[in-house]
Amino acid sequence: MAEQMTEQMAKQTLLEAFNAASYPLTGSSRWNVNQLLEAFRSIDGEQDSDIYGNGAIIENFQAKIASYLGKPSAVFFPSGTMAQQIALRIWSDGAGNKKIAYHPLCHLEIHEQNGLHELHHLEPLLLADKSRTIGLEDIQQMTEKVSCILLELPQREIGGTLLPFSELEAISAYCRERGIKLHLDGARLFEVLPYYKKTAAEVCRLFDSVYVSFYKGLGGIAGAMLAGDESFTAESKVWKRRHGGDLISLYPYIISSDYYFEQRLPKMEQYYHAAIELAELYNSCQHIETRPEVPVSNMFHVHAAVPKERLEQLFKAVYAETGVGLTRYVREVDADNSYFEVSLGDRYLGTPKDKVREALGLLGAKLAELKQQ
Amino acid sequence: MAEQMTEQMAKQTLLEAFNAASYPLTGSSRWNVNQLLEAFRSIDGEQDSDIYGNGAIIENFQAKIASYLGKPSAVFFPSGTMAQQIALRIWSDGAGNKKIAYHPLCHLEIHEQNGLHELHHLEPLLLADKSRTIGLEDIQQMTEKVSCILLELPQREIGGTLLPFSELEAISAYCRERGIKLHLDGARLFEVLPYYKKTAAEVCRLFDSVYVSFYKGLGGIAGAMLAGDESFTAESKVWKRRHGGDLISLYPYIISSDYYFEQRLPKMEQYYHAAIELAELYNSCQHIETRPEVPVSNMFHVHAAVPKERLEQLFKAVYAETGVGLTRYVREVDADNSYFEVSLGDRYLGTPKDKVREALGLLGAKLAELKQQ
Repeated sequence: MAEQMTEQMAKQTLLEAFNAASYPLTGSSRWNVNQLLEAFRSIDGEQDSDIYGNGAIIENFQAKIASYLGKPSAVFFPSGTMAQQIALRIWSDGAGNKKIAYHPLCHLEIHEQNGLHELHHLEPLLLADKSRTIGLEDIQQMTEKVSCILLELPQREIGGTLLPFSELEAISAYCRERGIKLHLDGARLFEVLPYYKKTAAEVCRLFDSVYVSFYKGLGGIAGAMLAGDESFTAESKVWKRRHGGDLISLYPYIISSDYYFEQRLPKMEQYYHAAIELAELYNSCQHIETRPEVPVSNMFHVHAAVPKERLEQLFKAVYAETGVGLTRYVREVDADNSYFEVSLGDRYLGTPKDKVREALGLLGAKLAELKQQ
Repeated sequence: MAEQMTEQMAKQTLLEAFNAASYPLTGSSRWNVNQLLEAFRSIDGEQDSDIYGNGAIIENFQAKIASYLGKPSAVFFPSGTMAQQIALRIWSDGAGNKKIAYHPLCHLEIHEQNGLHELHHLEPLLLADKSRTIGLEDIQQMTEKVSCILLELPQREIGGTLLPFSELEAISAYCRERGIKLHLDGARLFEVLPYYKKTAAEVCRLFDSVYVSFYKGLGGIAGAMLAGDESFTAESKVWKRRHGGDLISLYPYIISSDYYFEQRLPKMEQYYHAAIELAELYNSCQHIETRPEVPVSNMFHVHAAVPKERLEQLFKAVYAETGVGLTRYVREVDADNSYFEVSLGDRYLGTPKDKVREALGLLGAKLAELKQQ
């Protein structure tokens, strides 16, 4: 019987095991059609669609988020990929300088199939190295003139790390003095506000343009907002049309974005404290460390000095014994090391604390055994 | 009292009057959130979302439409603007030739803010003049070598006109012999199949790549499909990512596209006959002619030798007296002439014939009076 279980478990993927767990810990909900149905449950069906960027549904939401971000204007986009390429293109065209600067692990550098070059012919300068965030010194030491710098808060690909707010202020002042536009990749901006103890507007006033996402910590279906002054957003609408993003109807994303913004923005502080709590439990396990050690948002990365397949086996055993799902995937770093990302939301808040401790305790025990083998 | 009515009417926009009419004749439904709610009414909420182009929801629909179009493969896009620029870019890159050819009133030429040039640096050659469709001769007489030709069936901006199927076959053979790729702008392909008496696959086999839309005659919310051979669609996915169209979740558009495809594809023949019927009624009015005179799809344009404001007044009076809404807008051609587009769907089919005749009869009477003034 136990042997049969083990055989079944071996066949199951980690994702399947995670989805079957009673207490999946990451995210806010399963990524399925119910996300949409829930958001539309109380919506009046007679409400007119937006039409190619016009209409109350889109204009009201744009005004609401512009106001929240403390910017004169905002434009809803189907994706951040589109919004951010466009922001950099506008600043580059304005300065007549194709050079822009960002982090080597910036979304535009590693996740967009080189669209920034293939479509916009922009030339990125990479600031800082892969292991840390961009600091004021990196910018001061630039030897080439750039039209724009993109900063991502927090830097997702290194676990969600942040530079101190005072350094952000110094970077902003430095760039303004030199006429360098500063763009905020705020894919997870909402998520860092509790750590910074700032309003979104207090962060955004340091930047000339801002992108925020509605499906990261907020857990919407898709969609992004690009904010800035009126002339910037007017130009961004022309580029949105060019990119094929000016859809006749964007309301499926707008209504759901607005719904989850209202539902989950007030919980960002809870998600942040949950991440600190869970990271501490992970760090108490042998062979494991989180990056950052103490999270500054709802996310962190878990690095394990354990091969990917081995870690997956351990996790499946933990899920089976405790009913707690820790991660849906593990990625290989090299033959001996692996990692995964943790991003917390409603699911963690809804899980009994003793279940979380039980699961991490069991994981710790299994990792300790591993060493002895 | 009558004066009061007139004053009210004068203040009302034509769109408001159209929306207030008991029998609006164009389109299939009001463009509002009910379109989405209806499509999702019978959908299982537990169905997993597509994730960045993967998952059963998107893959099954792509396979279904590829098969319907008789192509090896298809990719769902948020918009036709994105899909078509990408198709032309792929063919252009493949041939190492930035020249492509299309009609002067092609969507890419007049509705996309010059995206094809600004993003893809392609150089369009305009074939035929604005008043007619591209024919074989136009292509034979090209003096420059192009990588690709785009044909739109039907040519929307001139009322939805078509060239004979035999000429389409001749164009296809001519282009294949010369290694020129042929791309179909099939925004309204479903709508012309009853006239051609062909299956979609019979039309599409004349083309190397095909775009179809789910919100024109079908009345979905938004969304498009790009079809072709496997290597073409694989490349188009890379470009979709670059354009910012590879959204984490596209299912709000996919599910609604599939729903309205099933609902309305079988009615295209009825819509087509409705257009012939209504065009005949318009053509019986003085000062009015439709283009084409006899429609070949569910659409046609109505041209009036009447100034825009005057025509709007007449329409508002007809809507008020009969309850029938004929058009939501009128566009100025010049000081003496105006026009609008008619596209028929479920609403026309659901309107009693005597109401239609009553409205067009009254319009005819008012137009005849106009002449006598």
